[in-house]
Amino acid sequence: MTAERSWRGRVFIATSLDGFIARPDGDIEWLTQPRADIDHLKAPDQPPPNGDYDTFMSGIDHIVMGRTTYEKVLTFGFWPYENYTVLILSTHLPPAHDERVTVVSSIDAAHRILEDHQAHGVYIDGGKVIQSFLAAGLIDEITLTHAPILLGSGLPLFGALPTDTHLRLDAVSHSGNGLTHSTYTIIPS
Amino acid sequence: MTAERSWRGRVFIATSLDGFIARPDGDIEWLTQPRADIDHLKAPDQPPPNGDYDTFMSGIDHIVMGRTTYEKVLTFGFWPYENYTVLILSTHLPPAHDERVTVVSSIDAAHRILEDHQAHGVYIDGGKVIQSFLAAGLIDEITLTHAPILLGSGLPLFGALPTDTHLRLDAVSHSGNGLTHSTYTIIPS
Repeated sequence: MTAERSWRGRVFIATSLDGFIARPDGDIEWLTQPRADIDHLKAPDQPPPNGDYDTFMSGIDHIVMGRTTYEKVLTFGFWPYENYTVLILSTHLPPAHDERVTVVSSIDAAHRILEDHQAHGVYIDGGKVIQSFLAAGLIDEITLTHAPILLGSGLPLFGALPTDTHLRLDAVSHSGNGLTHSTYTIIPS
Repeated sequence: MTAERSWRGRVFIATSLDGFIARPDGDIEWLTQPRADIDHLKAPDQPPPNGDYDTFMSGIDHIVMGRTTYEKVLTFGFWPYENYTVLILSTHLPPAHDERVTVVSSIDAAHRILEDHQAHGVYIDGGKVIQSFLAAGLIDEITLTHAPILLGSGLPLFGALPTDTHLRLDAVSHSGNGLTHSTYTIIPS
């Protein structure tokens, strides 16, 4: 589907070294409030371009996320996506739930809206949505940040796939707090 | 237990980006015979020290592996560990199975032999053995290589843990074929 799309599906997400985006109960404080007493490899003076959230977001116009991620964002106390068109993939939320977002009930419905909008950079967020979009061949790029912790259990980033998915390594870097950042382009199968 | 040990438990292992050390049937050709038609980030002129197997092995005197890994090594057609004392952790293999190795039936038995030998660098290999040694607090260092592929299923490197395990990032690098290498020191809990 890549050649037919106006848009690129882009993932920018952090996991524990054992591949979890959150603890079983959704907690991400292990990521947002890391231990400060560990003497990690020194961070470079400039943040690495591939690991910088603001740089990533400057190439984004639409966001697609699942209900779980949406509800996590609501706990932040502010809405961080004022300048973006946000689609929530959910079969549970009513369509007119929140005027800041558009609820869609399927990947196909999301895809149609993105095409109608002639979207360019689409931030695909949340474990289940990323898994669904990957399986559907709708992810073009992944920047994966690994945090220096093993959780042992939690919500996994990756899941089952219909085929092997080959990736091209484009960049690797590290920043503060022991974070590493790897950016890949998906090779269409 | 760290302070009481003569030896450091060291892991040097590769996984797919989704965390598998092998396919469900044990196959690792996705790692050993990677696609050659992908234009990955250029490898540095010198192999990165933290991702180099020979450099790693130069600091090793003992190896502990599980039966599955041992049986995989036997398929290589040659014995790569001539200069090392090799312990196989297994409750199935008979003790006098193969004169090149020592079969031990528990982590405690392995630990006693390593202490008796005044071992220094101990290469801990194989998914289940690594998981057991991690859970027992007997791993000090991990170098994790990520291959640029998502398999979707397979034998996982990491498993359940009794507590969070914090890591110190010591080095990150990349080499050919889109491989990244991250080296961590385990922070004792």
